Amino acid sequence: MTHAEQTSNATPASLDSARQLAAALLSERGEASGALIARELQQTMRRLDADSRHGFQRYLAAHFQPDAAALRDAAQRYLADSTAATAAALAQAADPPRQEVLRRMNMAPGGTASLIAMRSEIAKRFATEPELKLLDADLKHLFASWFNRGFLELRRIDWDSPAAVLEKLIAYEAVHAIKGWDDLRRRLAPDRRCFAFFHPALPGEPLIFVEVALVEGLATAVPPLLVQDTDAEAARSRAAHADTAIFYSISNCQDGLRGVSFGNFLIKQVVEELQAEFPQLKRFSTLSPIPGFRRWLGQQPAAAEDAAMLRELDRDSWWRDASTSERLRPFLMKRCAQYLTRSPASGNRIDPVARFHLGNGARLERINWLGNTADRAMQESFGIMVNYLYDHDSIERNHEAFAREGEIVRSPQVDALL
Amino acid sequence: MTHAEQTSNATPASLDSARQLAAALLSERGEASGALIARELQQTMRRLDADSRHGFQRYLAAHFQPDAAALRDAAQRYLADSTAATAAALAQAADPPRQEVLRRMNMAPGGTASLIAMRSEIAKRFATEPELKLLDADLKHLFASWFNRGFLELRRIDWDSPAAVLEKLIAYEAVHAIKGWDDLRRRLAPDRRCFAFFHPALPGEPLIFVEVALVEGLATAVPPLLVQDTDAEAARSRAAHADTAIFYSISNCQDGLRGVSFGNFLIKQVVEELQAEFPQLKRFSTLSPIPGFRRWLGQQPAAAEDAAMLRELDRDSWWRDASTSERLRPFLMKRCAQYLTRSPASGNRIDPVARFHLGNGARLERINWLGNTADRAMQESFGIMVNYLYDHDSIERNHEAFAREGEIVRSPQVDALL
Amino acid sequence: MTHAEQTSNATPASLDSARQLAAALLSERGEASGALIARELQQTMRRLDADSRHGFQRYLAAHFQPDAAALRDAAQRYLADSTAATAAALAQAADPPRQEVLRRMNMAPGGTASLIAMRSEIAKRFATEPELKLLDADLKHLFASWFNRGFLELRRIDWDSPAAVLEKLIAYEAVHAIKGWDDLRRRLAPDRRCFAFFHPALPGEPLIFVEVALVEGLATAVPPLLVQDTDAEAARSRAAHADTAIFYSISNCQDGLRGVSFGNFLIKQVVEELQAEFPQLKRFSTLSPIPGFRRWLGQQPAAAEDAAMLRELDRDSWWRDASTSERLRPFLMKRCAQYLTRSPASGNRIDPVARFHLGNGARLERINWLGNTADRAMQESFGIMVNYLYDHDSIERNHEAFAREGEIVRSPQVDALL
Amino acid sequence: MTHAEQTSNATPASLDSARQLAAALLSERGEASGALIARELQQTMRRLDADSRHGFQRYLAAHFQPDAAALRDAAQRYLADSTAATAAALAQAADPPRQEVLRRMNMAPGGTASLIAMRSEIAKRFATEPELKLLDADLKHLFASWFNRGFLELRRIDWDSPAAVLEKLIAYEAVHAIKGWDDLRRRLAPDRRCFAFFHPALPGEPLIFVEVALVEGLATAVPPLLVQDTDAEAARSRAAHADTAIFYSISNCQDGLRGVSFGNFLIKQVVEELQAEFPQLKRFSTLSPIPGFRRWLGQQPAAAEDAAMLRELDRDSWWRDASTSERLRPFLMKRCAQYLTRSPASGNRIDPVARFHLGNGARLERINWLGNTADRAMQESFGIMVNYLYDHDSIERNHEAFAREGEIVRSPQVDALL
Ligand SMILES: [Mg+2]
Ligand SMILES: [Mg+2]
Repeated sequence: MTHAEQTSNATPASLDSARQLAAALLSERGEASGALIARELQQTMRRLDADSRHGFQRYLAAHFQPDAAALRDAAQRYLADSTAATAAALAQAADPPRQEVLRRMNMAPGGTASLIAMRSEIAKRFATEPELKLLDADLKHLFASWFNRGFLELRRIDWDSPAAVLEKLIAYEAVHAIKGWDDLRRRLAPDRRCFAFFHPALPGEPLIFVEVALVEGLATAVPPLLVQDTDAEAARSRAAHADTAIFYSISNCQDGLRGVSFGNFLIKQVVEELQAEFPQLKRFSTLSPIPGFRRWLGQQPAAAEDAAMLRELDRDSWWRDASTSERLRPFLMKRCAQYLTRSPASGNRIDPVARFHLGNGARLERINWLGNTADRAMQESFGIMVNYLYDHDSIERNHEAFAREGEIVRSPQVDALL
Repeated sequence: MTHAEQTSNATPASLDSARQLAAALLSERGEASGALIARELQQTMRRLDADSRHGFQRYLAAHFQPDAAALRDAAQRYLADSTAATAAALAQAADPPRQEVLRRMNMAPGGTASLIAMRSEIAKRFATEPELKLLDADLKHLFASWFNRGFLELRRIDWDSPAAVLEKLIAYEAVHAIKGWDDLRRRLAPDRRCFAFFHPALPGEPLIFVEVALVEGLATAVPPLLVQDTDAEAARSRAAHADTAIFYSISNCQDGLRGVSFGNFLIKQVVEELQAEFPQLKRFSTLSPIPGFRRWLGQQPAAAEDAAMLRELDRDSWWRDASTSERLRPFLMKRCAQYLTRSPASGNRIDPVARFHLGNGARLERINWLGNTADRAMQESFGIMVNYLYDHDSIERNHEAFAREGEIVRSPQVDALL
Repeated sequence: MTHAEQTSNATPASLDSARQLAAALLSERGEASGALIARELQQTMRRLDADSRHGFQRYLAAHFQPDAAALRDAAQRYLADSTAATAAALAQAADPPRQEVLRRMNMAPGGTASLIAMRSEIAKRFATEPELKLLDADLKHLFASWFNRGFLELRRIDWDSPAAVLEKLIAYEAVHAIKGWDDLRRRLAPDRRCFAFFHPALPGEPLIFVEVALVEGLATAVPPLLVQDTDAEAARSRAAHADTAIFYSISNCQDGLRGVSFGNFLIKQVVEELQAEFPQLKRFSTLSPIPGFRRWLGQQPAAAEDAAMLRELDRDSWWRDASTSERLRPFLMKRCAQYLTRSPASGNRIDPVARFHLGNGARLERINWLGNTADRAMQESFGIMVNYLYDHDSIERNHEAFAREGEIVRSPQVDALL
Repeated sequence: MTHAEQTSNATPASLDSARQLAAALLSERGEASGALIARELQQTMRRLDADSRHGFQRYLAAHFQPDAAALRDAAQRYLADSTAATAAALAQAADPPRQEVLRRMNMAPGGTASLIAMRSEIAKRFATEPELKLLDADLKHLFASWFNRGFLELRRIDWDSPAAVLEKLIAYEAVHAIKGWDDLRRRLAPDRRCFAFFHPALPGEPLIFVEVALVEGLATAVPPLLVQDTDAEAARSRAAHADTAIFYSISNCQDGLRGVSFGNFLIKQVVEELQAEFPQLKRFSTLSPIPGFRRWLGQQPAAAEDAAMLRELDRDSWWRDASTSERLRPFLMKRCAQYLTRSPASGNRIDPVARFHLGNGARLERINWLGNTADRAMQESFGIMVNYLYDHDSIERNHEAFAREGEIVRSPQVDALL
């Protein structure tokens, strides 16, 4: 940024000039000087106040419609004679100029980031301004194309990564909050791996990241994974002896990219990376929350006996009392197994985390009593956690069984709970 | 690449398996294992023979049509009630599944390069198989989005660049052929600059590059720019005293990206880079060929006198004779100035190089007698070369005058020739 | 490191095997397989316990003497005929084989770091084992050669630097302790610069670093420089308007390199870097402590009046009371000016920080009342801080005046205090 | 380099100013402003003409002697009482100030390169100016310390390396001349590897490099290794099936570093790198020339029969005639085996290439009839080439047998020729 630009950032800009620049981008002037205008618009947008920004978003959503006469014409031709050629002509006529404006806005340095920020911002107002959804759909269409897997770069994140990247892990971790730099450091110790996808247009901005623990045997509880431990030598030795990789946290970082899915690709490529680095690994599994269990359970008709149990669960720290805990365990474990194995084929709403992993071809492997006693996990699922297993040889089969027949592929262990 | 993959590349693959993989990419299987299938398809495509490759291209062009019923429905709804929402719904219904297949093919490593190669290959068959144009249009649409200016990286190329990149300059130079590594080295000497756009998905593959000479005064002839000269110290000193940057060669490298324009952006950013490195530069100009002049001249009705001149030009090496050359000069220079200043507004076909630079906002600055006596230049334009001047302050104005009114903005020097 | 090496690190190694490997390094075996033996020795040393490590250091110090007969012979020849040739022969005969052993130990990965660690460790035992000083001298001789300015790399450190480097700033900061990552971040804000020297054999290990604040006018007190401030935009604007660079902290990081001086080079190159990035900077100055002032003052014969003052200074937080502070100020400022301007020519022991900067050619510019009220500064110098000014044009003259005549070059402002 | 420096490079500099700057480097001024003075001296040296450069080298060789009185004193003390302490004191007194001057000259950018160039230049004049040998010895001492294995970086060189590095391979290849860029490219094909040592102070300047071919079975002749072949796929497949790595060319690049040995380290580390990349490699061997064979053979007393053979060898292209070749073969192979197996213990001068590899612990594996029919090889050794085998498990044993007892460790195949 030049000095001039820095200074100009200080003074607010007008909605009008933003509108004019956007219009100019699509005009003839835009052909010769598109990059320049995009840069100016970029700077202007940075200096808009919240209201003007809002106004500009509405402007983008409402204007830049396809040419109505041409589109009607193409639609009529297609209806008259439905060929590949008339379909293609119709697609072209329908392609919204708004997408072209957005593509041209992207030509400026920082353009991609500002479009992502815009999509994040407008989401809050869909209820009152549904017309913003058109802008949202166009942004999502572009992002799905731009953030194609082929353009993403997988990078390992460790203690040698830039602090500017690391602090984003702290900010974005959505599952098990990172409590400052010491905690972060533990997540990056020699018996841990952290990988993220990056996009060339957003250097230093992780799109999604996953945290992995290298352990012996299936990890069934969270606390041992998060415990502080500063002995690097011991951690290195654990990694050398590990037979299992536990994916214990996956976090999306960019709200503006919601709906553009990275998680499936990330998990599968990280499995490959880990297998190459640690050929002795025999098992790849998640240790995952069950965000919808408690809510679901509350909605079920309850027998008198069950209702009594449920009341016990309202007491603070019921789980700290061993006898209470053991008493409740069979009931909750069974109900949880029921919750997780309901077929979507019968119209049931599947737990979102389950849907993600089962949809990726993972198998429901193990349900763990009190796997996580952090507040949120107690609140969501009475502390129960679940392992989804990624087994290379059955991923495709599992996925199809789930996608086509709504079958929840699971281990005998889970069946035994039912 | 693993050993297994290398080996398998040796055996040919069948068109059928390529088709099945492409279909699978769009199926449910593709959701869970898209990246994997894309990789397999990628490997399969590499092993197709020419016929099967052709067959696969036809398959892509013909299949993956939008759902006809849904599209008809959307078309009817739009015709019944033309709103932003119905237009968006129609655009979505019309969006060709073929584009989605191509996007998914791009998920594999090397995917982008293979799609570019595909577009390059199909171009040869448009005449006999017009249906391939639909595939071409979709590829072009995707490339225009993926190769957005915001995703391109400008890099300086010099003698420290990888040989694997440098040999591509030799291969792709389209204006003044590079005759081996010594010639290349001269083009990268301290009084030269070479810049190229790269895309992250095509590392080591320049998309377009420009060669610049740093000189004193406007360079009006090619030979001094290409002369061998190995004195690095002298070259460095010339660079330090230069007041003018001459863009003497611009070459597109990827035939498969034709129609996706980079040149305008490249020139303008290179001007900025050079201005930053050499604040003393006062002038940025091309030294360009006039590919269409001779052809145009041949099509003009000729007075008897002119016809005699034209016959002289058929003789070999006419220009080596100074008196002949001087005799022909006024005639050809005038006709050339006429050729270059005809307005497109009157339906004239503008010289393609002129159209490019004038369209970018450059000014027709100077017409140079025998600026290049290489065979091709003699053949195209009797050796006449032209300078187009990029003047920061008038670029937008020039562009608009040209684009709106078909005005050829030019220097008084050029006017004087008319 | 291979798995085998990792495991073997766990079991302790014997002093004997370390000795044998060191001896082998100098033997014929060492010629063929030096790098291999060095690596083995390196691994063995890592597994020695403290006693064996100590034993090995003593072994290195005591053995590897020059060949006595050859050295006596060379000494006698030189005494008989003192020529350049006999001097060179004597130097060669005297060159201690211990240096050659150390050079060969350096051939292993991590060798340099382990030699530095060794020198750091032996320093504690000079008092009781003076023979270790021979080893120390050889290490220092080698380090002075290996860490030659020509081999050092200046790198800017900022928030994009690896966390593994940044945490070393926190650990090594010797002047104004860095209180965690937020404090560190402030030190790396856009109106700050931090530079360090690195050596290729110690990647990620700063040797020395300097922290610089970009300010308007001479900074005369520490607190404004350390105050938290998270507004990056404001900081960027301050940097753009700064006319003065304040070097407010310089810290050596490697105890094992003590006596090998980097500070002088560092300051001077950082001045060049800053001047290039911020051409508008007009002044380069330190804001430095005066570690020896209080001790010196305590050793001076005190008039009765002065003694009373000194007693007041023993009270906690005397400086928080404005009237006390104002009363003591003239006395302390005058005495401090006296302390700092005593000539070394008269045998005075110069304050170490003053000696460093004056020896580098800086000028004593300003003495600042309560420039730093942190505990240590109050303890060392009653909170008084001093600016040393680096003025490009007078550095050499200042240095010579100081080095030859013991002249303390100073500003009129300082003179006025005397 | 600044503009001012560039310009000043043009005007010649005087020997006197170079001398004064060198003296200043060691003076007090040098302490404060050493880096600055070193830079000035560096620039001055670049502008000296050949005579002045020579004069400056003589100045360095003759001046900067150790303090005579101090050295005599230290010598006497050592003779009076030979302890570790007096030896150390003597070493310090003898340490030549010339080395310190050279170390300080190294502080400037480009300093190391210019010292290496100096050593290269003075070598030509040792015969007439033996005093330059003192300067040579000091430079060599410093280089041996600075270019310690621990400071060298092994880098693979391939077609993605900078052209500026690659052209140095062409320039420095000392064994099998590289005939331009196409030939170079073949040396870097997928079934070849090239590795070089670099030093951080000489970026882009290889110190030594080795060319390796990945083949099946022991390569016994040069031509198949150098044959042009542009099929990258075939080369990749050959590499995947190779069981043997042939080191067919090792070249030192820096004449000024002669006597500082890198070759041993290079071969051994490259063996490790190759083993890691290609675990299936079973054999590491050279294919080497025998530079001293013909000369030695000419010096042997010859029986009448032998003399007749030798005369045949004077004929041009004798080897092209199969029957001649077969007739001479037994004689020459036997004599060559004799030449290569003579023990150094009996005072024989060992072939230099043999000495290098046997000294590194390699084994004399195979002698190859007409392994190289290039002019130089025919001239040196009648085209005979030899394989030295590097076998990890016997390297140390081989080395010691050679170094201690002068034993030439060899294969039964070689024994059979004797
Ligand atoms: Mg689209
Ligand atoms: Mg030495």
